[in-house]
Amino acid sequence: MALDVLEPQSSDEQLHKVNRALSSGMFVHVRQMLHQMACADVALLLESSPIRTRLVLWQMVDHDQQGEILEELPEDVKDALISQMSAESLAAATAGMDTDDLAYILRSLPDSVYQQVLVSMDSQDRARVEQALSYPDDTAGSLMNTDTVTIRPDVSVDVILRYLRLRGELPEATDTLYVVDKQDVLLGGLAITTLLTCDPNITIKKLMNRELEAIGVDMEDTKVSQLFERHDWISAPVVDDKGKLLGRITIDDVVDVIREDAEHSMLSMAGMEDDVDTFGPVFKSTLRRTLWLTVNLFAALLAASVSNMFEGTLEQFATIAILMTIVPSMGGVAGNQTLALVIRGLALGHISDSNARWLVGKELAIGFLNGLIWALLIYAVVWIWKDDSALALLISGAMLVNLTIAGLAGAAIPLLLKKLNIDPALAGGMALTTITDVVGLFAFLGLATLVLL
Amino acid sequence: MALDVLEPQSSDEQLHKVNRALSSGMFVHVRQMLHQMACADVALLLESSPIRTRLVLWQMVDHDQQGEILEELPEDVKDALISQMSAESLAAATAGMDTDDLAYILRSLPDSVYQQVLVSMDSQDRARVEQALSYPDDTAGSLMNTDTVTIRPDVSVDVILRYLRLRGELPEATDTLYVVDKQDVLLGGLAITTLLTCDPNITIKKLMNRELEAIGVDMEDTKVSQLFERHDWISAPVVDDKGKLLGRITIDDVVDVIREDAEHSMLSMAGMEDDVDTFGPVFKSTLRRTLWLTVNLFAALLAASVSNMFEGTLEQFATIAILMTIVPSMGGVAGNQTLALVIRGLALGHISDSNARWLVGKELAIGFLNGLIWALLIYAVVWIWKDDSALALLISGAMLVNLTIAGLAGAAIPLLLKKLNIDPALAGGMALTTITDVVGLFAFLGLATLVLL
Repeated sequence: MALDVLEPQSSDEQLHKVNRALSSGMFVHVRQMLHQMACADVALLLESSPIRTRLVLWQMVDHDQQGEILEELPEDVKDALISQMSAESLAAATAGMDTDDLAYILRSLPDSVYQQVLVSMDSQDRARVEQALSYPDDTAGSLMNTDTVTIRPDVSVDVILRYLRLRGELPEATDTLYVVDKQDVLLGGLAITTLLTCDPNITIKKLMNRELEAIGVDMEDTKVSQLFERHDWISAPVVDDKGKLLGRITIDDVVDVIREDAEHSMLSMAGMEDDVDTFGPVFKSTLRRTLWLTVNLFAALLAASVSNMFEGTLEQFATIAILMTIVPSMGGVAGNQTLALVIRGLALGHISDSNARWLVGKELAIGFLNGLIWALLIYAVVWIWKDDSALALLISGAMLVNLTIAGLAGAAIPLLLKKLNIDPALAGGMALTTITDVVGLFAFLGLATLVLL
Repeated sequence: MALDVLEPQSSDEQLHKVNRALSSGMFVHVRQMLHQMACADVALLLESSPIRTRLVLWQMVDHDQQGEILEELPEDVKDALISQMSAESLAAATAGMDTDDLAYILRSLPDSVYQQVLVSMDSQDRARVEQALSYPDDTAGSLMNTDTVTIRPDVSVDVILRYLRLRGELPEATDTLYVVDKQDVLLGGLAITTLLTCDPNITIKKLMNRELEAIGVDMEDTKVSQLFERHDWISAPVVDDKGKLLGRITIDDVVDVIREDAEHSMLSMAGMEDDVDTFGPVFKSTLRRTLWLTVNLFAALLAASVSNMFEGTLEQFATIAILMTIVPSMGGVAGNQTLALVIRGLALGHISDSNARWLVGKELAIGFLNGLIWALLIYAVVWIWKDDSALALLISGAMLVNLTIAGLAGAAIPLLLKKLNIDPALAGGMALTTITDVVGLFAFLGLATLVLL
């Protein structure tokens, strides 16, 4: 019988089914469904669920699946789940993990739990992990796994073939065996495809690729990803400064670096951190966005103070003209933060019909909270600067309205555009800025006209 | 002897050396250096060079390297080089190419050249390519290569091992052999690592992975990349709706899709197309950015017309207050386009000390050209709207100054931040907007004060 062909909708449907079962309280059924799903799909489900649902689901996941699922999750989500787990279940979950993921998880644990997990490992694993923990984040060392298969140069292919058959299973994404000397210094590589196609009597020395390029353990992870992209590598050996083989980096970890770097650029341009969790709690999300809005308020005030220098030109009610750019500007920045998150969520396939409504509601709530914070602040600034409490009240009212609308529009616009088959990344920003400009000016100037005239 | 360890600086240094040799006219030397470089590095060098240098370098590249180098280049650069080549040299260069890349190149050729290239192929290659050309862009079919290795279910591992030894070399990134029936319907997969470690007497039927997931030939390429990321695949089979094996997709092509999608989001948010060439010619670059600035002008005018509704509130010289947001807004958008490009260039490793100065000069030139275009337009708009030619002249002067500065700042700020070890993606946007706001307001209000008072 032919194999099933993967349908692009399949993961959306799975998500729907689990959510339906969950909301009708069929927990046994949910547990069964989770058990049958691939770990990567469970990870996607967790990542696409609101924070409370996520914790409920996590309780139902098989314990021996937890480790692999944790490996697939982004940092923010991973941290939240780990903080809910006991030391014993953590130790159990991390048992079969890759060194690099294990090191990451250990780094983020409180000291007492960390020690407990370490104690529960066998001594070889412990040594491996302690080594991995010694490499700084964002270097080749932190991306590396130690599961290399090494061979000696002076044996024949036939010997290697028999050795591999004795050894059994090879580590995932093994495309090259590494040839090393007695001091573990890397001499070359042997593609396993070569092993399959060559004459079994040749010695490794004659066959091995001496041009194999090795990565220094201190290389920046971004550089590593550039090399992988440029040379189409599946895996690459990592060596210390004496050429000693320490481990290997595989393409799946590099893909994560490429994705993270690219997202980092996009989210950073909107003033967001890149490990941010689209489905995390509202208060945390609001706080995370304040830095950029603070910086923008200073920038907007700087612009206003430039206009202020020309007060003579602007004449009567000049103050209104001077202040009128502040509210639209803050709305633009706040809305763009939401927009960048939602566009990323759509690109990663995290947002579907089942959670879109929830997400818009969340962003609206963040917008309103943001509005309250910045209304208070701008009230204080304008009152002190212009000594006019009516004007200060006015601008803070406009700020509240505009930031709330900005949150709503930032989430709703890309979802709407997607439905209409228009590229949200292209049209979203401009549609958003137009809305925040128009609403901001209307609210401020409209209130001013009502109150002051 | 131990292998050389790759230094992160090595490609920068190579670039420097080639540029020095080129500018001192040592063409024979340059040709030699290019010959010794890896194709991927030559591609990087071409991509990071200004348009004229790029064409000179292309003339010096070995003919038998040209195909592989073309495969590595982004579309815009590839198109420019192809348009300079004769049909014969194109046919020669494309001889050993992967089906997917070859199909891309053939698609972009003028009809006469296309026919010539097709005629020069052998009939099997021609059939393969004509098949590949029939799949729409951005689907699994267009990403697919036809270089699969297929086996039958009812033979033993030993037979397969002997077959592979007879066959010789396996295609790149082969991690799985596909098990098919007589009608080429996919039945399962066999990892080549399994082949190495299992008992040679087992039949394939008992050993093969029947859970292997296959990709439908019509699946969107973005969905394909999500599946690869989620399941950490190295390659995946592609089938038609009857389950017949058509080819396979490999991770290196998927990495390109991931990178392109991510860049697309970032560049689109700044209103740029994503296949844009950072080092392309000035006029073409200027034209490509006009669409977004046109849209923004309408948005800014809409905002101004909102202020206009409150003219009574703004009173005397109200017009200036109403118009004063337009110039900063245009500067912000123009500057952000440059910024997004330069940040991407830095992330991809395309910008180094040797071409940074050239790039700043280019962006300054584009800024000035942009300034001229939009100064003329805003002159016309304000003259017609407000019937005041002095005011129109004023605002168009401010526009020219601000867009020129925006081009300069958009290129210089990220380079400067990078030198200071500050993340350009995070700090660049806000620094830029502050500059364009302040310069825009200063230029407009300052000129207004000088002229009107």
